[in-house]
Amino acid sequence: MKLIIDCMGGDKSPGANVEGGLLALDRYEDLYLIFSGDEAAIKAEIDRLGGGRGRCEILHAPDVITGEDKPTDAIRLKRESSMMKGIKLLRESDDIGGIVSTGATGSLVAAATLRIGRLEGVFRPAFCPILPTMSGGIVGVCDSGANVDCLPLQLVQFGVMASAYMEKAFGIENPRVALLNIGTESEKGDDLRKEVYKRLSSLQGINFVGNMESRDLLSGKYDVVVCDGFSGNVLIKTTEGTALQLLKKIKTDIYSRTKYKIGALFMKKMFAEEKEFMNYQRYGGSVLLGTEKIIVKGHGASDKVAVAKCIEQARSMVGSNLNGVIAERIAAIPEDAQ
Amino acid sequence: MKLIIDCMGGDKSPGANVEGGLLALDRYEDLYLIFSGDEAAIKAEIDRLGGGRGRCEILHAPDVITGEDKPTDAIRLKRESSMMKGIKLLRESDDIGGIVSTGATGSLVAAATLRIGRLEGVFRPAFCPILPTMSGGIVGVCDSGANVDCLPLQLVQFGVMASAYMEKAFGIENPRVALLNIGTESEKGDDLRKEVYKRLSSLQGINFVGNMESRDLLSGKYDVVVCDGFSGNVLIKTTEGTALQLLKKIKTDIYSRTKYKIGALFMKKMFAEEKEFMNYQRYGGSVLLGTEKIIVKGHGASDKVAVAKCIEQARSMVGSNLNGVIAERIAAIPEDAQ
Repeated sequence: MKLIIDCMGGDKSPGANVEGGLLALDRYEDLYLIFSGDEAAIKAEIDRLGGGRGRCEILHAPDVITGEDKPTDAIRLKRESSMMKGIKLLRESDDIGGIVSTGATGSLVAAATLRIGRLEGVFRPAFCPILPTMSGGIVGVCDSGANVDCLPLQLVQFGVMASAYMEKAFGIENPRVALLNIGTESEKGDDLRKEVYKRLSSLQGINFVGNMESRDLLSGKYDVVVCDGFSGNVLIKTTEGTALQLLKKIKTDIYSRTKYKIGALFMKKMFAEEKEFMNYQRYGGSVLLGTEKIIVKGHGASDKVAVAKCIEQARSMVGSNLNGVIAERIAAIPEDAQ
Repeated sequence: MKLIIDCMGGDKSPGANVEGGLLALDRYEDLYLIFSGDEAAIKAEIDRLGGGRGRCEILHAPDVITGEDKPTDAIRLKRESSMMKGIKLLRESDDIGGIVSTGATGSLVAAATLRIGRLEGVFRPAFCPILPTMSGGIVGVCDSGANVDCLPLQLVQFGVMASAYMEKAFGIENPRVALLNIGTESEKGDDLRKEVYKRLSSLQGINFVGNMESRDLLSGKYDVVVCDGFSGNVLIKTTEGTALQLLKKIKTDIYSRTKYKIGALFMKKMFAEEKEFMNYQRYGGSVLLGTEKIIVKGHGASDKVAVAKCIEQARSMVGSNLNGVIAERIAAIPEDAQ
């Protein structure tokens, strides 16, 4: 199982990326990693930490793509970047299954779409990040930002791809797929939602359970939420933002009274756990579904644990032949649901 | 200052509506209320509570519009409902400034748009609920669900109307207006967002501060957030849902360890306050901006305090001549920003 780790472009790169890679190598005997990025920096990191067990190599890339780079320019002009060299090697090597990157999202989507290419039948690849639910499970949100203007067909495909993903990568049987909407009744929403509702309802091979209101995202009643990339992005960033802001407010309010300060002494660990619970990096990266190879985008702020988690995810996606399953199910969508 | 209170259709109607009305009458000497709904029930409630101070009357309406009714049918067929009789009286009476309802949202929007009519120049009325920010202020979100498919002109008008509202009803000077988007850079988002960004940037008389990512909604950096009704609905319901789910989780987690239970004894009041803080009913109803008369939609679950707050809001909107200001500013939008 060969994977590429783009070691540059994250907030804690290359350190966290290399260390996360070494953690994953320790954990999985079948893994072989190619670290893409500045050779000297990566080598120093590997030497410092020790490890790798002879199952890794370095792909030297002197340049870095940042969030400031315009994606279309970045993929044309920054060919010596860790991301583009990694993508190029991925495309050219039949024995490499995927890439993990904590770099610029826009450039990664552009590179994956234009250089790696889409799976046959897939209209556009889509992001599917994972969030924790209050019942202890997880929920996948697809798309969360790769496609801001969407056709009905795309949302149908997001549902099919994300359902396969939750099943293959996380072992969730017959995932419950919901459509993000402004009400639960079937006739709710804009023209796009009404049409997608109809198509998903009639589609075989998917467990479509109807519309979901955004307030129920974390309820544990759904395994996959289908949405256009704009509202999906609003959905996950609002969830993250509200939780963090509320925990921050609680922290501030604790200092307003001595009584609260005393109580907080007993509960310190709990508050830390709540924060960690809402930290959705912990559940892995946001995978790009629908490309020829496996692409996992880790959060820019990923630490070594988050990077290792992303690698674990990529490994399970390659190992379960997720792409084969997606291609098969996309091909099985009947004409009238397209 | 005459206002109509639709007393039916809420979860706690008519009790909470009548009691909220009486609270408002106690508070504001210039107020006169018309309670629309079942006469016997409303009268019994007024008699029970005492009060009203001779500044209220009852408009008998035997029927109720519920969330089950299709809005277009409801406004045609349920003419004897508290909402439709209230709307009819509002339209026919020059001396009545507005209506407060905790009834079905869709029917209220349809009735307001079709029976009351739009302010001159307004393309479509839009909802603007208020949320609390972590810095102790408030933020208005416009539109939050009345318009699911939007043209650029509509979002520009939402910005102008909501800015006037925050200024006139809450005394916020020069409100900071942001556009909900998937990134802060000017070129982010779908075609709609890119176009609206351009138009709002060039518009005089509005303090447009750029794009806002949904995670910053509660940061206190913005007074107005402009969005289409679909993503606006996702934004506010996700905020509400995440906060409530997280507080519920904390409550459950407290019971997992004796230490936490002890700590919680000291902090009981604080948790209740956090819940109350996130309860956005407390900040008033969701007003419908852009109609000829003032329309305030209270949450279906509104209690007496929430109803009184909605009435206070309607009173301040009428009193500050908000509609006159909105009409003036809408007329001042130059051709190229339309």
